[in-house]
Amino acid sequence: MTFTGSVQYSMDLIGIFAFALSGAFLAVRKDFDVFGTIILAEVAGLGGGLFRDLVLGVKPVAFTDPGYYSAPVIAALIVFFSSRIHRHARLSDVFDTCDMAALALFGVTGTVKSLGHGFGTVPAVTLGLASAVGGGVLSSVLAIQVPALFQWTRDLYLLPALTGAVLVAVFRLAGVLNGGTAMAAAVCAIGLRLISMYFGWHTPRAYV
Amino acid sequence: MTFTGSVQYSMDLIGIFAFALSGAFLAVRKDFDVFGTIILAEVAGLGGGLFRDLVLGVKPVAFTDPGYYSAPVIAALIVFFSSRIHRHARLSDVFDTCDMAALALFGVTGTVKSLGHGFGTVPAVTLGLASAVGGGVLSSVLAIQVPALFQWTRDLYLLPALTGAVLVAVFRLAGVLNGGTAMAAAVCAIGLRLISMYFGWHTPRAYV
Amino acid sequence: MTFTGSVQYSMDLIGIFAFALSGAFLAVRKDFDVFGTIILAEVAGLGGGLFRDLVLGVKPVAFTDPGYYSAPVIAALIVFFSSRIHRHARLSDVFDTCDMAALALFGVTGTVKSLGHGFGTVPAVTLGLASAVGGGVLSSVLAIQVPALFQWTRDLYLLPALTGAVLVAVFRLAGVLNGGTAMAAAVCAIGLRLISMYFGWHTPRAYV
Repeated sequence: MTFTGSVQYSMDLIGIFAFALSGAFLAVRKDFDVFGTIILAEVAGLGGGLFRDLVLGVKPVAFTDPGYYSAPVIAALIVFFSSRIHRHARLSDVFDTCDMAALALFGVTGTVKSLGHGFGTVPAVTLGLASAVGGGVLSSVLAIQVPALFQWTRDLYLLPALTGAVLVAVFRLAGVLNGGTAMAAAVCAIGLRLISMYFGWHTPRAYV
Repeated sequence: MTFTGSVQYSMDLIGIFAFALSGAFLAVRKDFDVFGTIILAEVAGLGGGLFRDLVLGVKPVAFTDPGYYSAPVIAALIVFFSSRIHRHARLSDVFDTCDMAALALFGVTGTVKSLGHGFGTVPAVTLGLASAVGGGVLSSVLAIQVPALFQWTRDLYLLPALTGAVLVAVFRLAGVLNGGTAMAAAVCAIGLRLISMYFGWHTPRAYV
Repeated sequence: MTFTGSVQYSMDLIGIFAFALSGAFLAVRKDFDVFGTIILAEVAGLGGGLFRDLVLGVKPVAFTDPGYYSAPVIAALIVFFSSRIHRHARLSDVFDTCDMAALALFGVTGTVKSLGHGFGTVPAVTLGLASAVGGGVLSSVLAIQVPALFQWTRDLYLLPALTGAVLVAVFRLAGVLNGGTAMAAAVCAIGLRLISMYFGWHTPRAYV
């Protein structure tokens, strides 16, 4: 099963744009120049999918589609030239919502793509997760900052994406994976994230 | 020449587990949450082999075998939930021994695998070394910490692994590479590390 | 179109050596040991091309040619054992000139290679740029230092390489890409860098 091309493509573009915004905000906060901001936005938007495609052994979509490539540039320029506005305004809520949706979408679509290339259930879920969080982790490391994902002070971040990816794998094993159920998995992932933010849930830290 | 499957597989599992322990200890020391600890253990355990397989152009074993994938999860959970114990206890000796053995094993098996894919002697030794140290370097960088490997204050670390990898290449050129001689190369590598630790040898630093 | 083998090979070796010097200087400044210095030189010299080849899906040249592999080792040993000299002398001008030429060369040759593997104009330019700056970025990150490339305080760095890569793409679209015009693109890139250094131009930073 695959999504119809246009649905997959739109979801990918939205996700890439949302992650790229996140990378661009980090770059501006680190006082990078305009090229550094574009690079960090590209890495944040496309890094996860690039890693997934290298492991799958397919030509990375990041380098084949002009839309995938342009979305981070646009995100970077918006953030870069609006920095006078957003340093005072409270855009973080809008931004968090985008990032959350992107994470859920990428976890789901990455798992679907990996299953479609003959990977087993657990590897496909892992690769789906890696494509979801990879861009954020890579862009943090390039900016020499510990990825927020790893820190226990963060709200639930990986768990919702994991939930979406696992649901996709379960639907596949049950033979009911299609565009509708995949979308439902993404909605569940977003819902879990929203609930966890509302209640302020955290993942456990080691007792140290 | 290849090892018999089960010997190779057991050595790989032990090595992955030892490296994963190292990544998990780093994660707990950095106060990562449980997912961050699992991710760092996976990267430390599988990162070197993943890099090797991407360069070799083969499907990464990290994503094909459930054992390879599960070993770091188990290592992460053990370290994470025992942190109350090991922060006071002196487990570092046990741990150092595991890490040392893993480094020697990976240097040897990575070189053997690279030679088997038609790489020349020097590239195969390089790739063997990269598979041995890659996981540790990658997990350090993800945790924003200069890899210990690079620092002159560290005891001999790369040299023993290099010795093992070079011995494998020499055995191959001499036509005597087999499971036994490969194991002998790993034992030499471990021996050199033990001797260097006993005498407190260090690699030279630049005169600055 | 390709360059004649020997021209391409010589340009590659010069570029790799220049980048490797840069990585080795960073390693010595960070007080790495001799192996750490060699590793950082290898990453700085070969990292960009390795990334390009992994994305292109071809066997990385870094692991196939003994010259490519040896150049960084020589660069590392020179820097390492001469550190008593260059910490007092002003070698940075020589070094900057090498690095600048290498950046322009790699931007041009990386774009040519990517176009030759059927990549579109924009992806090929991106990949050419990535092969030019990749080694420097990777070696900085391994040494836990924000890549200078990203920072607005740096002189124009990416723009000259981008100019060279775009010129190659334009020449190709106009059907006039050959060894001579590719070299002209590299010369333009170096010229722009020299002019920008003379006038002290900087890329814009966000208004923060």
